[in-house]
Amino acid sequence: MPREIRINAFDMNCVGHIQQGLWTHPRDQSTRYTDISYWTDYARRLEAGLFDGIFFADVIGVYDVLGGSPDAAVKNAVQVPVNDPMMLIPAMASVTQHLGFGVTANLTYEQPFQFARRMSTLDHLTRGRIGWNIVTGYLDSAARAAGFTQQMAHDDRYDMADEFMSLVTALWEGSWDDDAVIRDKARGIYADAAKVRVIHHAGKQYKVDAMHLSEPSPQRTPVLYQAGASERGTRFAATHAECVFMNGQKQPAVKQAVQELRQAAAQQGRAASDIKVFLGATIVTGATEQEAQDKFEDYKRYANSEAALVHAAASLGIDFYKYDIDEPIETKSNAIQSNVAAMTRAAGPQWTRRKLLDQLVMGSRQPPWVGSGEAIARKMIEWCDAADVDGFNLSRTVVPECFDDFIAHVVPQLQERGAFKTSYQSGTLRGKLFGRDRRASTSA
Amino acid sequence: MPREIRINAFDMNCVGHIQQGLWTHPRDQSTRYTDISYWTDYARRLEAGLFDGIFFADVIGVYDVLGGSPDAAVKNAVQVPVNDPMMLIPAMASVTQHLGFGVTANLTYEQPFQFARRMSTLDHLTRGRIGWNIVTGYLDSAARAAGFTQQMAHDDRYDMADEFMSLVTALWEGSWDDDAVIRDKARGIYADAAKVRVIHHAGKQYKVDAMHLSEPSPQRTPVLYQAGASERGTRFAATHAECVFMNGQKQPAVKQAVQELRQAAAQQGRAASDIKVFLGATIVTGATEQEAQDKFEDYKRYANSEAALVHAAASLGIDFYKYDIDEPIETKSNAIQSNVAAMTRAAGPQWTRRKLLDQLVMGSRQPPWVGSGEAIARKMIEWCDAADVDGFNLSRTVVPECFDDFIAHVVPQLQERGAFKTSYQSGTLRGKLFGRDRRASTSA
Repeated sequence: MPREIRINAFDMNCVGHIQQGLWTHPRDQSTRYTDISYWTDYARRLEAGLFDGIFFADVIGVYDVLGGSPDAAVKNAVQVPVNDPMMLIPAMASVTQHLGFGVTANLTYEQPFQFARRMSTLDHLTRGRIGWNIVTGYLDSAARAAGFTQQMAHDDRYDMADEFMSLVTALWEGSWDDDAVIRDKARGIYADAAKVRVIHHAGKQYKVDAMHLSEPSPQRTPVLYQAGASERGTRFAATHAECVFMNGQKQPAVKQAVQELRQAAAQQGRAASDIKVFLGATIVTGATEQEAQDKFEDYKRYANSEAALVHAAASLGIDFYKYDIDEPIETKSNAIQSNVAAMTRAAGPQWTRRKLLDQLVMGSRQPPWVGSGEAIARKMIEWCDAADVDGFNLSRTVVPECFDDFIAHVVPQLQERGAFKTSYQSGTLRGKLFGRDRRASTSA
Repeated sequence: MPREIRINAFDMNCVGHIQQGLWTHPRDQSTRYTDISYWTDYARRLEAGLFDGIFFADVIGVYDVLGGSPDAAVKNAVQVPVNDPMMLIPAMASVTQHLGFGVTANLTYEQPFQFARRMSTLDHLTRGRIGWNIVTGYLDSAARAAGFTQQMAHDDRYDMADEFMSLVTALWEGSWDDDAVIRDKARGIYADAAKVRVIHHAGKQYKVDAMHLSEPSPQRTPVLYQAGASERGTRFAATHAECVFMNGQKQPAVKQAVQELRQAAAQQGRAASDIKVFLGATIVTGATEQEAQDKFEDYKRYANSEAALVHAAASLGIDFYKYDIDEPIETKSNAIQSNVAAMTRAAGPQWTRRKLLDQLVMGSRQPPWVGSGEAIARKMIEWCDAADVDGFNLSRTVVPECFDDFIAHVVPQLQERGAFKTSYQSGTLRGKLFGRDRRASTSA
């Protein structure tokens, strides 16, 4: 019996997300991102297809590394303009019962006390369907937006993140006892003040002396997502994360990363199964192999390599335009360490812009899986078995048809093989993923 | 022909808002505040009744002034627990077309760059129905939650607010030209980078060097609400506010305050009509005078004076328990200056706790207007004419029946007198209020 594969849609409150240029496809609707009915329809569609959740990326800043200018990003809508993803969730939650929501929030630029209340509010309104993707940022442009001249050094960002986590965890888990809220109209007692306490925190970065303003929500702590894959990022994930996103095309490398992550979690006193690993994937599928290939050929015509280069330059922290097209690129940066490491692993020190451009198959460094529903389903099951992966984050290509195609062609094949649910369990997001509503206690 | 009266529901994402204790009424549903369908039903109800908007109060902190402890606030649900009001708006917007949304956000504890994006996102998702009630806070408990030992002095808070306003205005109005977004699939151009610019701000409190991340939204700047009524607060409102909330029971005093505000606006080069004034009101009505009186008697039995005292103590910044019940109270504080001034005006220096308790008719210092729909409608029209008020913010009593009653009994009487619309205009919130989508330029 294969494991139950988890499927999230991976999106962002913007036009161009991962597969750059596809917004220009005549059927693509991502330019409707400011329209609330676009998102409520989207949510209904995913829930009808039994998706586990939708996961929202976010970035505070613009991709101005390539050529030292944001112009190409603006022209091609490479994750700019980008609206706040959190604001989509109440609307999408109001038309669904089961769909989970993961939202990226950069803790570097959040006030922990307000942030904790915002997430508690979402956990209430979604009835426990909220998750938080913890990021610390990697863009100097974001730091400049917040009044700094540049971002903090990579490992310092994680130290700050550890303190932030410890503080918000105290607010979520420690301020109100489970039985603090009585809600007794007859006696006129809403809550028992003896069971509500002030959280005192005086750390290096934050100082708080207050009770949490929200009463306990279904999950209290949102399901914690994390994508850091550097050594320091893995340690952070092993301590805090319940779901981890990975990218990678080579199974042995992904397998090893998953293994190391689960081992690191075990060293923190957690079970290896306390972490669900989601692999990033881009899928082009159809009723037949031919239909999928035809679709792929069609989509590719709208892909935009310049836009993909803008994104890659920012993720890697490297301005490729400073190098001739065949000149080896130095892989040192203060951006996403795991991206840089992956690039070096894949190409060695002789990495060049030309090699990178060759890889940008459909507007991104993530090559799509193209095939019939059956072929995709088999590949997914094979990956989960071989690399110990729990599920997939599906990047959008042409929306919403990419999700319609997945639901029509891949989901039934997965179900037939016992690898995908045929109806939702009731309960919270954490309940569905781990069989418990509350976060397992960690050393944090 | 009387002026068109504007009506907002006044609420908060919590149990006990203004009329303390009424949550214990058997028909009151405010304990459902964590349920998203409570809010979507609420929005539909208000829109069916042609309300102009719903206005959300908020507070970051707890009412711990009375007796130096938050216990009575927690026990009686006096604005605690309190969830983030902003998260209600996308859900409520998704089921309505016309209802406006005003949301309170305390700029002292917001990052201006993120905040500007959040509001732009809401303006997009609501299609231009968002308003922002600018507050600077008045609670030391909020300052402690944010890592300070106490809040800033009253006038310094407004200086900081002026700088915040100047920065977010630049982001909203100055970063993207009207024609920057081209959205041309055929040419593959989303936006013209030459028409998007970085905002450079280096002030006393904030430093930002970034382009606004959101493309222009229908209103760009949300409709600006303000409630400050101190001398410094009036100057701030005269400069920035488009809608101003006032409280007051005595018509001559309100009339004078409105006059001063409009004069102050004129001194800033604005038209007197550039500001809409909303008076806070609590209404208990019914099909007949008798029914309204009976309802009032019923409601009063659930009101809670201790809880009202908790709220009053925090608003005034005075711990009444430090005084004997008949001992004159010193009216000096660092909290809401206009509240303190109003108290002194009303009672002179011989203000005592007993006098205050006598005023707490139905769980608040705001005595209700009780009467038939016709009597209430006449009183509203008379107030607007006499005190130059544009509309009312209706505090909730027993929800949702208080709004049902208003819609059933008062709205038709106002309509009959030509003082209330019979259908919505289309367009943005600002368009409905002022006949223009964009904010009139000010010196800010």
